[in-house]
Amino acid sequence: MSELQAGERGNGYDDVPGRAPAVTRADVLAAAGRAKSACDAIAAASSAVKDAALKAMAAALRSRSAEVLAANGADVAAARAAGTAEALVDRLALSAARIEAMAAGLEHLADLPDPIGTVARGSVLPNGLELRQVRVPLGVVAIIYEARPNVTADAAGIALKAGNAVLLRGSGSAHASNSVIVDVLREAAASAGLPADAIVLVPGTDRSSVTHLMTARGLVDVIIPRGGAGLIRAVVEGSTVPVIETGVGNCHVYVDASADIPMALDILINSKTRRPSVCNAAENLLVHKDIAREFVPLATAALAAQGVMIHAEPRFAELAGPGSTVPATDEDFDTEYLALDIAAAVVDGLDAAIGHVKRHGTGHTEAIVTGDLAAAREFTGRIDAAAVMVNASTAFTDGGEFGFGAEIGISTQKLHARGPMGLPELTSTKYIVTGTGQVRPVA
Amino acid sequence: MSELQAGERGNGYDDVPGRAPAVTRADVLAAAGRAKSACDAIAAASSAVKDAALKAMAAALRSRSAEVLAANGADVAAARAAGTAEALVDRLALSAARIEAMAAGLEHLADLPDPIGTVARGSVLPNGLELRQVRVPLGVVAIIYEARPNVTADAAGIALKAGNAVLLRGSGSAHASNSVIVDVLREAAASAGLPADAIVLVPGTDRSSVTHLMTARGLVDVIIPRGGAGLIRAVVEGSTVPVIETGVGNCHVYVDASADIPMALDILINSKTRRPSVCNAAENLLVHKDIAREFVPLATAALAAQGVMIHAEPRFAELAGPGSTVPATDEDFDTEYLALDIAAAVVDGLDAAIGHVKRHGTGHTEAIVTGDLAAAREFTGRIDAAAVMVNASTAFTDGGEFGFGAEIGISTQKLHARGPMGLPELTSTKYIVTGTGQVRPVA
Repeated sequence: MSELQAGERGNGYDDVPGRAPAVTRADVLAAAGRAKSACDAIAAASSAVKDAALKAMAAALRSRSAEVLAANGADVAAARAAGTAEALVDRLALSAARIEAMAAGLEHLADLPDPIGTVARGSVLPNGLELRQVRVPLGVVAIIYEARPNVTADAAGIALKAGNAVLLRGSGSAHASNSVIVDVLREAAASAGLPADAIVLVPGTDRSSVTHLMTARGLVDVIIPRGGAGLIRAVVEGSTVPVIETGVGNCHVYVDASADIPMALDILINSKTRRPSVCNAAENLLVHKDIAREFVPLATAALAAQGVMIHAEPRFAELAGPGSTVPATDEDFDTEYLALDIAAAVVDGLDAAIGHVKRHGTGHTEAIVTGDLAAAREFTGRIDAAAVMVNASTAFTDGGEFGFGAEIGISTQKLHARGPMGLPELTSTKYIVTGTGQVRPVA
Repeated sequence: MSELQAGERGNGYDDVPGRAPAVTRADVLAAAGRAKSACDAIAAASSAVKDAALKAMAAALRSRSAEVLAANGADVAAARAAGTAEALVDRLALSAARIEAMAAGLEHLADLPDPIGTVARGSVLPNGLELRQVRVPLGVVAIIYEARPNVTADAAGIALKAGNAVLLRGSGSAHASNSVIVDVLREAAASAGLPADAIVLVPGTDRSSVTHLMTARGLVDVIIPRGGAGLIRAVVEGSTVPVIETGVGNCHVYVDASADIPMALDILINSKTRRPSVCNAAENLLVHKDIAREFVPLATAALAAQGVMIHAEPRFAELAGPGSTVPATDEDFDTEYLALDIAAAVVDGLDAAIGHVKRHGTGHTEAIVTGDLAAAREFTGRIDAAAVMVNASTAFTDGGEFGFGAEIGISTQKLHARGPMGLPELTSTKYIVTGTGQVRPVA
């Protein structure tokens, strides 16, 4: 269930021409209205019913896997026929193993504690009123995502576990796959006693369906765009529905003067190369000048051994040696490569490193490798990001790794949720105040 | 400090012609940029420094009260000259007592615990990584509000205590007052070692300055509009900066069949008449048919004694008796009167009452008066609002009453904060992960 957010860049959320029917605003609003109408029932459903539904959804995916694979085969064939790159086709393609992983993810959700109804805070006020702040569902959660059809099941499951109805707006390239998966999930949810409309596929796969969705105020409670920077910007700028921004990760690894060099090399290589296409991958290396002479040649060799192209500023390039790097342009330090490329620079010290991160970072994940307690404290205090790592890989920014059990994405905004979002981040709260006839003095 | 949100309806956030200079987008962005530049220093400031600043701000308001009153006198004179209604002039007008209340509010903030740096959750992960989610400031908080100039000090104080820089966009009618108050606060903050730009008055008092502010993405982290429905809708629909919606309170009191009648009368009268102009005031009365014959005449008399006009549906009107009510129109049940008016209906039972609230409520505060545990449970479970009261006045929805010590407003949205917003609601979080060289397996 982890890294749902990952690497779905560049494959677009736009229509693949001819792959799905055009829709009107009324169609999208009708779909949103169906999800809205299911809210009360899913919000009121007991944990037992929700968990039974998740298990039924898992079982149905397994028993109807042939249907899912057939629809996915059509999507894959159409993508290949349209000349789609194989890397993107791989994201689109399902297999028996991928369907099993989707089913297992749903069963895992059933085993997690239910956030709904838990008391976030509570007290008895001086006048005897009993105050409780309890977790309630958000309502209708809309998720816009790109090619990978496994997100359809993952997102539906986590939204349902948190008592929400979900509107799923996948990619046009996965339309046949998503249609079948949603059909399977809806039927299974209904068999467990939940309204089928707790899970609704948004019709339409062109931009207008996103526009209609993000302006469906009153029908949609929150919208979570997951994908490339263009999609996220379009939703943030055009939405009248509250948005949780999941975002771009222009992540840095800063190697301090006091770093343990083998540790720094491990963290650098893991951060950069473990999965280059995901948002928690490192895109920048900063090296303290006092350790640069020793570290830069070792880092250059280690990166080269993994096939990483280094875009180096002059001081780094000089220490790396001729021919081992390419010159960094102004844009390189602002580029989320999501590939085997890294921008690298030597900096004068901790303060310069922090300043560099503040200028170029996107508030996702920033790491320092250091043996110096004061440096660690200053870096973690001054860097304003969803996650700040000390002597650990940037790859750990992940709901699964953080122990949340499930993740709907990684928020890079400051409001509501920041960092990996698990079940509690898909909830709101309400205050319940119980009295014995108290009235408020006129003051 | 409570009820900051209250009753600033209808006086507008628009320019009073000729009262303030026109500004350009560049002017507004420059102001936002100054606040942004102060963020790091205010975020890093210790509790001791912030509290000293709050006390210095209080002292300065007292020592420079003559200046504040003189500027306010000019605003009041201009408002009267423009024919402004006396109720609005009263909101605009300061007095020695009101300035003392502003100063005392700032000192009270200094006594509250600092939310910044508190650990929201923390654990040691199986791989030995130490995970902490710590509270950090939001950054730059912009507040748009209407006439009352005391909000200027209250909002600046609470934002500063939570480590934020604040952009204040008050009403044109209070421009002279706000200018002097902000000048006083900035000078005092600076005297305590904080950047003066932690508190910035947004130039301009026409709508375009709001437009520039709400599209200052990257410079403003959150925008909180406080005021009439028109302002809030304009910001929600036009903002590209995240918004916390404070809102309209179309609040209901539902008197169940099992209600204690004297208690129900007390709660009804307190909810409706304690301060009719505030958002937690009741605007609707629903009465279970089984208690209506006894309760409606008593309620009608009690409301009449307070000068409340009852807009009644036919069943209520019949029980109230001829001449004691006016007929309710379709709009009455959707109207936030903020005045001595109430819409009233007899309903067939709990289910009908909940349905009515769902159709007409705005998710602010809903109250049930009942002696029946099952009815209380069903009402609190099914009503989706920021606050649900059982046998208590709607007037208790307030940060001060909830024990938060301070309040910046009452959120009626589900994201980030819902209900009264205190200091924690003006913060975000970040994850700090401390390791010993951990890297993540490729999986």
